[in-house]
Amino acid sequence: MSIVRAGILGATGYTAVELLKILLRHPLVEVVLATSRQDHGKPLSEVHPLLAGRTSLQLENFEAAAATKACDVVFSCLPHAASATSVQPLVDAGIHVIDFSADYRLNDVATYETWYGGEHPDPTRVGQVPYGLPELFADEITNAKLVANPGCFPTSAILPLAPLLLHEQIQPQGIIVDAKTGVTGAGRTPKQATLFPECNESIAAYAVGTHRHGPEIRQILSRRTGVDTDLIFIPHLVPMDRGILSTIYARPMRGVSAEQVMECWREFYEGQPFIRVVDHLPATKFTSDTNYCDLAARDVEGTLVLIASIDNLGKGASGAAVQNLNQVMGWDATLGF
Amino acid sequence: MSIVRAGILGATGYTAVELLKILLRHPLVEVVLATSRQDHGKPLSEVHPLLAGRTSLQLENFEAAAATKACDVVFSCLPHAASATSVQPLVDAGIHVIDFSADYRLNDVATYETWYGGEHPDPTRVGQVPYGLPELFADEITNAKLVANPGCFPTSAILPLAPLLLHEQIQPQGIIVDAKTGVTGAGRTPKQATLFPECNESIAAYAVGTHRHGPEIRQILSRRTGVDTDLIFIPHLVPMDRGILSTIYARPMRGVSAEQVMECWREFYEGQPFIRVVDHLPATKFTSDTNYCDLAARDVEGTLVLIASIDNLGKGASGAAVQNLNQVMGWDATLGF
Amino acid sequence: MSIVRAGILGATGYTAVELLKILLRHPLVEVVLATSRQDHGKPLSEVHPLLAGRTSLQLENFEAAAATKACDVVFSCLPHAASATSVQPLVDAGIHVIDFSADYRLNDVATYETWYGGEHPDPTRVGQVPYGLPELFADEITNAKLVANPGCFPTSAILPLAPLLLHEQIQPQGIIVDAKTGVTGAGRTPKQATLFPECNESIAAYAVGTHRHGPEIRQILSRRTGVDTDLIFIPHLVPMDRGILSTIYARPMRGVSAEQVMECWREFYEGQPFIRVVDHLPATKFTSDTNYCDLAARDVEGTLVLIASIDNLGKGASGAAVQNLNQVMGWDATLGF
Amino acid sequence: MSIVRAGILGATGYTAVELLKILLRHPLVEVVLATSRQDHGKPLSEVHPLLAGRTSLQLENFEAAAATKACDVVFSCLPHAASATSVQPLVDAGIHVIDFSADYRLNDVATYETWYGGEHPDPTRVGQVPYGLPELFADEITNAKLVANPGCFPTSAILPLAPLLLHEQIQPQGIIVDAKTGVTGAGRTPKQATLFPECNESIAAYAVGTHRHGPEIRQILSRRTGVDTDLIFIPHLVPMDRGILSTIYARPMRGVSAEQVMECWREFYEGQPFIRVVDHLPATKFTSDTNYCDLAARDVEGTLVLIASIDNLGKGASGAAVQNLNQVMGWDATLGF
Repeated sequence: MSIVRAGILGATGYTAVELLKILLRHPLVEVVLATSRQDHGKPLSEVHPLLAGRTSLQLENFEAAAATKACDVVFSCLPHAASATSVQPLVDAGIHVIDFSADYRLNDVATYETWYGGEHPDPTRVGQVPYGLPELFADEITNAKLVANPGCFPTSAILPLAPLLLHEQIQPQGIIVDAKTGVTGAGRTPKQATLFPECNESIAAYAVGTHRHGPEIRQILSRRTGVDTDLIFIPHLVPMDRGILSTIYARPMRGVSAEQVMECWREFYEGQPFIRVVDHLPATKFTSDTNYCDLAARDVEGTLVLIASIDNLGKGASGAAVQNLNQVMGWDATLGF
Repeated sequence: MSIVRAGILGATGYTAVELLKILLRHPLVEVVLATSRQDHGKPLSEVHPLLAGRTSLQLENFEAAAATKACDVVFSCLPHAASATSVQPLVDAGIHVIDFSADYRLNDVATYETWYGGEHPDPTRVGQVPYGLPELFADEITNAKLVANPGCFPTSAILPLAPLLLHEQIQPQGIIVDAKTGVTGAGRTPKQATLFPECNESIAAYAVGTHRHGPEIRQILSRRTGVDTDLIFIPHLVPMDRGILSTIYARPMRGVSAEQVMECWREFYEGQPFIRVVDHLPATKFTSDTNYCDLAARDVEGTLVLIASIDNLGKGASGAAVQNLNQVMGWDATLGF
Repeated sequence: MSIVRAGILGATGYTAVELLKILLRHPLVEVVLATSRQDHGKPLSEVHPLLAGRTSLQLENFEAAAATKACDVVFSCLPHAASATSVQPLVDAGIHVIDFSADYRLNDVATYETWYGGEHPDPTRVGQVPYGLPELFADEITNAKLVANPGCFPTSAILPLAPLLLHEQIQPQGIIVDAKTGVTGAGRTPKQATLFPECNESIAAYAVGTHRHGPEIRQILSRRTGVDTDLIFIPHLVPMDRGILSTIYARPMRGVSAEQVMECWREFYEGQPFIRVVDHLPATKFTSDTNYCDLAARDVEGTLVLIASIDNLGKGASGAAVQNLNQVMGWDATLGF
Repeated sequence: MSIVRAGILGATGYTAVELLKILLRHPLVEVVLATSRQDHGKPLSEVHPLLAGRTSLQLENFEAAAATKACDVVFSCLPHAASATSVQPLVDAGIHVIDFSADYRLNDVATYETWYGGEHPDPTRVGQVPYGLPELFADEITNAKLVANPGCFPTSAILPLAPLLLHEQIQPQGIIVDAKTGVTGAGRTPKQATLFPECNESIAAYAVGTHRHGPEIRQILSRRTGVDTDLIFIPHLVPMDRGILSTIYARPMRGVSAEQVMECWREFYEGQPFIRVVDHLPATKFTSDTNYCDLAARDVEGTLVLIASIDNLGKGASGAAVQNLNQVMGWDATLGF
């Protein structure tokens, strides 16, 4: 197989550097382009000193024509709206795009505009783009020109819930996702709220009832399972770099037990290399720096407690993106990991 | 008022040193005794170097007769069963005891023996001892000879829930307490699970469905409000020293709103110096090293999300113990803080 | 004694909130003013949620005339240059000022302008202002109108070194101060370098050879002991909120031993309530949230290893400021602690 | 090339799991044996849950004959003395051994017995075994049957110092190594001193003047460069999982500048894939989860400040071990990384 030439748009943040770390190990990919509006001209390893000696790339300004010519695939780590604006001409030109932003994840433009504000820059594609969870949307992703890389929290909620809704193991009403994330999830732009002394030695809920990943979880679950849920999603910020633990509360159908839930997952995800149904209680440390999603279930007084652990920068972002590339290209899912 | 002479049993752990820090500032208390089975003979400041120059106490072996003679009040930081065994003769002798263990918290011996194992050393007192939340049991605590200092998690659940059950703001069914604690909650005894590299950069649920604070929460809520709940309680370990954040999910009665919940709390806890009903989302950092319990509520798609933040070593343990002493003695609640 | 009315300029940062926590407990002080250019109009407890329910102050714009009228003492937590500009009229008007900035710490204007840049706003006072270490400059501080509160690193270096230079225990050449600080030392202004994911799980040296506390240490040692040193100072950033540990390497005079060093400190600092010469190896945890400076010395192959531990927000900033106030006023040094 | 069969003795600790993570990615190695005295019989993934689904190995009791038969190379992660006792028969039987313990690192038995106590179990080999820094001892390591994997701190001190002593850039007297390590360096055996709440939010020096890595650094520098130093080594414990930063103070020969030091390193280590001479100030985060050693130098008032950063579990232990295997076997140095 010939080497695929990859570009990264918005290469200065945490998801981009994680993506670079994986791609630099990927046997079938060469990173040929990294862009940044603010830092163009600088060596990539100046912005990410951990890459010293591992890449000689310089950050460039993004230009659609040049990117189209230089790359076979482009990963966009740009913020929402900016991302659709930038990748639209690339998709039109026929190269592969894996978009980390929320621009192409939702089912409809109205929901996008309600939760993200502003007009969508590329509304006709919304709802038509495969959602980048190969465990659930493999067929759509294979050969796709554009893939919507999932949100980190949605991945940790959809992977445990989708099989249980599809197979009627849990009730769609009253699902609660109590999620906990490391601070890289908040991005690398300086903000008082994510300074070390604000986050360290503290845990707090945030964006209660207003986090944009709520509608994403509900819409994708509905898209994949046909079941509408009234799930609520409450995120918390944890003093650690990386990792998401979602503790999900659901009521069983027909007295379904935690053991039956685990069995349902094992069957549904059989052969999937990145889903681990584990007997121990998942900890984010056990999935850190990996593309795994660990799943476990417990019965507690008639409620099913479902626990999912991922690395928000791994299966929650950059690991997922590489897995999506592998799926798009028809490669082995584990290449690069 | 004359100075009260205080003793501390089991003075080598995290709750004991926190208690010492508060008592050393308390204008009406002198600490005259600190015991340890393993470290007796050592200066207290050798076991807790942060106390260097602040106390010249030496750790002693516990002897009931000597403790009775030396102390007006004894705080027991001993483990369950050992605690009741040790404090029983002190209570019989008529001195005041504030017991940090679970021995006198529950309503009945049967529940104790189911969850804690073994025979209760002092079964006749079980169910007769005031539960040490002065905001809810002030009358029983005043002048009490024995007070059961609450568990850390129960404090963070009972304080927000009791007024809402009493005033029929929430339904007693389907209450979920998703709690997150710092690592001091796991004690100072060396265990692999609480080594720095096991806890750091990780979050996990533990004791799912089996944590002993579950029955304590349900029994005390029932004792105080007369309402039986089927509440479930799921604790998580967070990489921080101290703090508990409990995110509680409840269904409202009659469309009660979060604003009405906040109003209910404000009225119920009016005049209570350690309950803060806050407009911002509570973070454990804001209650760290204090005796406060911060409360907030939000409506999310028909579910009430109640958030409580305490310091597990403050209002969750040693702060509560001093507040209880103040209540027992009829002093101002804020002495020592 | 009547209550002293205190104001805080620049009340939104970490040193200000620490100062507030101490002053709110101080029996002879009432905080009557808190200013902020950016956040004036907001309640102080909105900027520092941990103060909820503890103060009803609103942040105000700074005006010299109003501050002079309202306050008996003003603590300035403003940045350098801005601080001297603001406090100059207050000092002229005769109220007490304790200045956290570097504006009045150095011995001469030339050094100030070399290291801090720009013109000094109040050059005639430079070199005339007592340096706020009551253990070393008590007489000058008593009754002073203006006190230069020390830098955090300098405190951790000057306290161990001054007695040893004065009493010729160590050679003035070749002194190395390898210092480690928590992240609050870098302030609360959003910067990429102090985001949680940049600092966490990492230690690094910074400002090697260029940190402004180097000349401060050398000048104050010289001012107090008459000995010029060629000391070098290398700071490191540690993933923790607070604390400074300075490991200092010095060559002994005449085979002076670590035990003799400890004895020299004990004699020199006899009666000083905040200096603890300890037998164990100091850890920042043991001085956290206190005004202590812990000191220990060890002999290692002919080199003296001196270790000092303080809380950068305690004895390194806000604790020192309150201790200075106590000294200025002739109160007991421990009031408020 | 055929696959090399590898065994790991003492497979339950932090260096072992890190070694497994690297070896599971190594294209020419298959791990066939993992031993544990305490946990034999358990699946390896039970002791290290992050390995779930990645290995089906069960922990076995160590038996020399079986290990000799099953393995081509054995990595020993056993403690000192136990390690030499266990690997001696393997070496005698002619298989390759890479020993993580200190048993074969020093130049002579007397020094070993002074610093480690007890009799050395295999004294005749001491001083004959290549020290596992391929950057300095490549010839001895190639084809070696036994390699002494270096201590973590010594790696961070020897790599920067050896070229400078060899090329007479620095004076051998008065070298100070102020080193800072993450907590995994203290091992996985439960101890109060390494509990999360003891280490978190704290930094302290430990084993001042008594750490066993002091003589190792001096002896290996002398062995490689012929220069005897009077270097002192002072370790500190930092609240992070992994990483070592060594800040080294040395006096230059003949006014050698930091730039000349950097140039000396660049020439000496040319072609070495794991040594990065960097322009920025090294941070442990930039070498975390890698086999790199980052080096930088600065001039500060006539003193050379040398900074080295490694991952104590990477280049400081398990990365080094795999690099040593690659060197022993004549493979490319970067295989597995």
